[in-house]
Amino acid sequence: MRARDLGICIGSLPPGPLNAINDVAGVRVGHETIVRGDGPLVVGQGPVRTGVTVIQPRAGLTRDEPCFAGCHRLNGNGELTGLEWIREAGMLTTPIALTNTHSVGTVRDALIAAELDARTDGEDYWALPVVGETYDGVLSDINGFHVWPEHLRAALSDASGGAVLEGAVGGGTGMICHGFKGGIGTASRIVPQAAGGYVVGVLVQANYGRRDRLRVDGVPVGDSIPTSEVPAPATPARTPPGAGSIIVVVATDAPLLPGQCARLAQRAGLGLARAGGTGDDSSGDLFLCFATGNGGLPRTDYGAGKPVEVPVSMVANPYLGGLFEAVIEATEEAILNALVAATTMTGRDGIVAHALDHDRLVAAMRAAHRL
Amino acid sequence: MRARDLGICIGSLPPGPLNAINDVAGVRVGHETIVRGDGPLVVGQGPVRTGVTVIQPRAGLTRDEPCFAGCHRLNGNGELTGLEWIREAGMLTTPIALTNTHSVGTVRDALIAAELDARTDGEDYWALPVVGETYDGVLSDINGFHVWPEHLRAALSDASGGAVLEGAVGGGTGMICHGFKGGIGTASRIVPQAAGGYVVGVLVQANYGRRDRLRVDGVPVGDSIPTSEVPAPATPARTPPGAGSIIVVVATDAPLLPGQCARLAQRAGLGLARAGGTGDDSSGDLFLCFATGNGGLPRTDYGAGKPVEVPVSMVANPYLGGLFEAVIEATEEAILNALVAATTMTGRDGIVAHALDHDRLVAAMRAAHRL
Amino acid sequence: MRARDLGICIGSLPPGPLNAINDVAGVRVGHETIVRGDGPLVVGQGPVRTGVTVIQPRAGLTRDEPCFAGCHRLNGNGELTGLEWIREAGMLTTPIALTNTHSVGTVRDALIAAELDARTDGEDYWALPVVGETYDGVLSDINGFHVWPEHLRAALSDASGGAVLEGAVGGGTGMICHGFKGGIGTASRIVPQAAGGYVVGVLVQANYGRRDRLRVDGVPVGDSIPTSEVPAPATPARTPPGAGSIIVVVATDAPLLPGQCARLAQRAGLGLARAGGTGDDSSGDLFLCFATGNGGLPRTDYGAGKPVEVPVSMVANPYLGGLFEAVIEATEEAILNALVAATTMTGRDGIVAHALDHDRLVAAMRAAHRL
Amino acid sequence: MRARDLGICIGSLPPGPLNAINDVAGVRVGHETIVRGDGPLVVGQGPVRTGVTVIQPRAGLTRDEPCFAGCHRLNGNGELTGLEWIREAGMLTTPIALTNTHSVGTVRDALIAAELDARTDGEDYWALPVVGETYDGVLSDINGFHVWPEHLRAALSDASGGAVLEGAVGGGTGMICHGFKGGIGTASRIVPQAAGGYVVGVLVQANYGRRDRLRVDGVPVGDSIPTSEVPAPATPARTPPGAGSIIVVVATDAPLLPGQCARLAQRAGLGLARAGGTGDDSSGDLFLCFATGNGGLPRTDYGAGKPVEVPVSMVANPYLGGLFEAVIEATEEAILNALVAATTMTGRDGIVAHALDHDRLVAAMRAAHRL
Repeated sequence: MRARDLGICIGSLPPGPLNAINDVAGVRVGHETIVRGDGPLVVGQGPVRTGVTVIQPRAGLTRDEPCFAGCHRLNGNGELTGLEWIREAGMLTTPIALTNTHSVGTVRDALIAAELDARTDGEDYWALPVVGETYDGVLSDINGFHVWPEHLRAALSDASGGAVLEGAVGGGTGMICHGFKGGIGTASRIVPQAAGGYVVGVLVQANYGRRDRLRVDGVPVGDSIPTSEVPAPATPARTPPGAGSIIVVVATDAPLLPGQCARLAQRAGLGLARAGGTGDDSSGDLFLCFATGNGGLPRTDYGAGKPVEVPVSMVANPYLGGLFEAVIEATEEAILNALVAATTMTGRDGIVAHALDHDRLVAAMRAAHRL
Repeated sequence: MRARDLGICIGSLPPGPLNAINDVAGVRVGHETIVRGDGPLVVGQGPVRTGVTVIQPRAGLTRDEPCFAGCHRLNGNGELTGLEWIREAGMLTTPIALTNTHSVGTVRDALIAAELDARTDGEDYWALPVVGETYDGVLSDINGFHVWPEHLRAALSDASGGAVLEGAVGGGTGMICHGFKGGIGTASRIVPQAAGGYVVGVLVQANYGRRDRLRVDGVPVGDSIPTSEVPAPATPARTPPGAGSIIVVVATDAPLLPGQCARLAQRAGLGLARAGGTGDDSSGDLFLCFATGNGGLPRTDYGAGKPVEVPVSMVANPYLGGLFEAVIEATEEAILNALVAATTMTGRDGIVAHALDHDRLVAAMRAAHRL
Repeated sequence: MRARDLGICIGSLPPGPLNAINDVAGVRVGHETIVRGDGPLVVGQGPVRTGVTVIQPRAGLTRDEPCFAGCHRLNGNGELTGLEWIREAGMLTTPIALTNTHSVGTVRDALIAAELDARTDGEDYWALPVVGETYDGVLSDINGFHVWPEHLRAALSDASGGAVLEGAVGGGTGMICHGFKGGIGTASRIVPQAAGGYVVGVLVQANYGRRDRLRVDGVPVGDSIPTSEVPAPATPARTPPGAGSIIVVVATDAPLLPGQCARLAQRAGLGLARAGGTGDDSSGDLFLCFATGNGGLPRTDYGAGKPVEVPVSMVANPYLGGLFEAVIEATEEAILNALVAATTMTGRDGIVAHALDHDRLVAAMRAAHRL
Repeated sequence: MRARDLGICIGSLPPGPLNAINDVAGVRVGHETIVRGDGPLVVGQGPVRTGVTVIQPRAGLTRDEPCFAGCHRLNGNGELTGLEWIREAGMLTTPIALTNTHSVGTVRDALIAAELDARTDGEDYWALPVVGETYDGVLSDINGFHVWPEHLRAALSDASGGAVLEGAVGGGTGMICHGFKGGIGTASRIVPQAAGGYVVGVLVQANYGRRDRLRVDGVPVGDSIPTSEVPAPATPARTPPGAGSIIVVVATDAPLLPGQCARLAQRAGLGLARAGGTGDDSSGDLFLCFATGNGGLPRTDYGAGKPVEVPVSMVANPYLGGLFEAVIEATEEAILNALVAATTMTGRDGIVAHALDHDRLVAAMRAAHRL
């Protein structure tokens, strides 16, 4: 079930066929979901509500054909590895993985190992993988380190260009958003043909926000389902209510330059703002945008026979407006899709994260004459 | 007339007594409005619809007692001088002035001259003033350079801590926002006593946005007053519809460190997003935040008798959440106040910027059950 | 007289024919030097030791054919207007002008006026000029505001692709560097053909540094000519010894992307470090790099008939090493050229800035076996 | 053996008693060195020349008493995790670890596990550790992933405030610098009492640079020991000569604010420039500075009884000059100390990294009259 199945459409641009990040040709998404055990938390044993999600930016090894990319930090209480090279050179050279806060390292090194296996040229090689996180310790035994290299490999194997599972799957398994069960969500938009006809896809791992701030297409839905009626799990001790994070990955087939990718990345925060995000101090609100429109980019390569100059294309800056709008709309809808897809989950110590009730959501939209 | 006079209140935090940037003690605002002539544009003669607005950050010469400050760029198609020292040292050392795009230089040097006049110590001295702009060439003879040093001095003389004029005044005189007459707007918020009880004030010079994107507290008011009914002036040739910019100045009496000011500045963009801003390519969406809570900061000073260490205070980071929310709410309301205050203006070549009709605004809010 | 005339060659890459920034085809440099009066300072009357230098990035109006550009801030106690658009879009759309700290505004608006005169299309238009500064108030009546629009126009008229005057000329007229007379200097380098054969040119307005820190090709020349023997003018009251700034403009004909320009800009600081710069707190050490290798870039343009995609080229990142080295070498040599070219100047109140004595410089290099 | 044992002293400020980063009170350094096997490379078996180095910023758990910190990227072809929170809030909340490129993840998660063991409060908790890397695959079986959690724990156990081992130890075990054997180096400086009398300590993991660029106190030592006489190991295929990286960690007991830490961090690049670094495209030249002078900083904490405001101190900006100079000098000397301490190492496939010969170094310095 997705937002559009309820009749809720964010914005004015049309979505792609899947209304998902992999409407961008070549992009593939895979999940590995780890759910195990119930009852009281025993560190190292569970209960476990976690996982890993991977995004393959394009067909083949990203390292052999990098994408231009850029990033933006709305709030930095989080981790997204590999950003230094993206800031410096605007090059995404590995798949992207999303997991829980305390498994970023395992997933990072496992990504390197997986890529080494896929290589046959025997050359020296180094990698700077991109791995992001949000915190699932409210529902899961995060300090048990339950994500292992084999889970990353399973997520890589699962990666496909087909319909993307949403809600409590992959890296989003144990996440909470606006006090409801959150997780993975995705959406896409197509800009008008006169502005290039490009596809923009967004995938979020949504784990942020206070209930009373939730807005759907401008309607204060969170206020209509207060925590006094539908409780929200407590955030960790010594953090403000609604603590948490959101990672947003934006993909497009437009031929953007690196700096243009960074500009799109910043617009994810505007979509987040419309949904009720404020970039809280406790949030890791980190956004990455990659653009596949320029193929054949040089890998980190040098030497005889390697070209000094490489032809690329750029979208003329005044035409970025449509892409900005697409990012804003798709981010807002991807968050909503995460909320709509997720079902109620009981985690460690019996803590419950309730799903956003579809009927109440629809009722709130109707009351505002938006449905 | 202001938004609250129509019953529209943005967000949940209470405003200060003036609901204006100068609810922050010591902050003073002054305008000089230049309106002259009608009819066809004759460069150098008019018609003129421009001006300058100044913000004095605190009592006395800012240079002798700087404020911590920070900034954020949502989109950089604009100018806000003096940002390099604010990025480097987090120090605001001059008043802030806002004017039209082609008068930034005149106003900048005039600020230096005015400050020289105010000094009596005879010491060597240099200044790096902060002057921002938006483009008023749709209504005004911007290439006639009608802002002169005397206008800056008049705005400085006008600066007071009393009620702030809004709409088509000062630097906002010739501005257009979401296709309606725009200009200067302001608002303030007070965070809860448990979070410090601080005041946050915002002043905007609003000159951005497409009609169909305007939202008021989430309600798509722009769609309900389409340009087919109430025309919007055309944006300059060869720019997309809705081209323009917004400068947001945030003030607070909280004792923020420079980096914390920058964090608040970024949140102005989230308030802008709620109002329908998208950070268009043609926009100079530049945000500045200064904090007066730390007094006695060292000016650019050195030598015998000058202390090496200076005591300051900071707001513990987890308590920034209330301030973030205050910035978001006050920015959204300041934009709305600019629209509500502005009256219809006819500019050069008979071009008309219509006011946002109060009745239609109220009707749209009521239809959505938000009033 | 230049460093190479004394036999001093910095680094290993060969310079271009002029060993100047305008070895980059199309780049033109013009100066207007304002020297007037002697004796005690009377604000508004003089003595005057100032001016303005302009750099035209390429043939024709930069606005009609912008260059990709990037910037870097080593220390931000200075002004270089127009950087927000360069950071955002990587586009240089105006000529670059350098002057004294208190004349930035006049020169900025005069650049707009001059460009308006050069246009005949009658279209709406806005400009965000790039104007930098260093402080010449030690020698000149900086608070007399002696740079006027006509001086900027004279510098524009003077701009040519021929040999560049160095030392106490144009914007560098009243500058002091490492306690010697400083000002404008320039140099260039050509990278090997296998790395593209590109030209890199650098122009500095050098007004920074303590005597004892001056190094020439690693030799501590400053220590060998101590201020006890050759006095250095006092820096302004309440600033540390050696206060001042340096603006570095880097040009190249390589087809760099905007982010690559920013990377080159940062390397200017490494050349500055070799010369003895430390990025002092009181310095405005701001660096701009533009690249002319991509022609036909879209101006801020939109609408029917305007292409959405634009083909450009980039230098493959691994080949940037030669360009980095070229920037480092040319920056160091440009600073040295400013020192070698400048002659002793007596400014306001009889303050003397001594030239770097060529004989002593050569003697110091010989003593270290570097000549 | 260290540079000063050879009579080579960089700069003019005096070092602290240890001339090491742990001259800053409370700072502790630990190494775990992993050297195993010889002969041809068999991935997963060896030979192994790697390790991990940890820096404890102050006594006790950093998380319970964070330090203000800042960072700078000279070139971003590398990884230093945890920077987003340092950029956002200027807070260092974990120890710092340095290792090889492909072991960053293991070390990161192991740092979390180690810190969890050290906690007894049972509270929810998350960590964003700071782990940096350089590439040791030229000498070591980097794709064998030979750094395990137990090695990180051993390095933590080894951490002490005593003399710091330098050269081929810890994270520096397999590193190469300017074509000589490199690794870990450290140095410190004390600024004058009138400027606060603060201590600045630097630790580098040096793995960068071409032979011909090596300079020692300005003397072109690299040119005097060319690779034709003393070979340098080949850099990885398809990278330019001299590929590699350097991580610089700066510590000080000065009460710096976060932005001031970032300013010091940038100066590490100026010291690197003097030593012959150019920030090559293939380099991860990432710099971190933390300041212990402000104690009692709030951890990520909130709630009843937690103060909203926290008193801190700052160094008045004009007094930063001495600290900048200290960073520059100590960075240059720390690099030299790494080179002087390291002894010749034979790695995988019999590849040899030669030590910088002390006699030839001294001879080169004497020839330039610098010894």
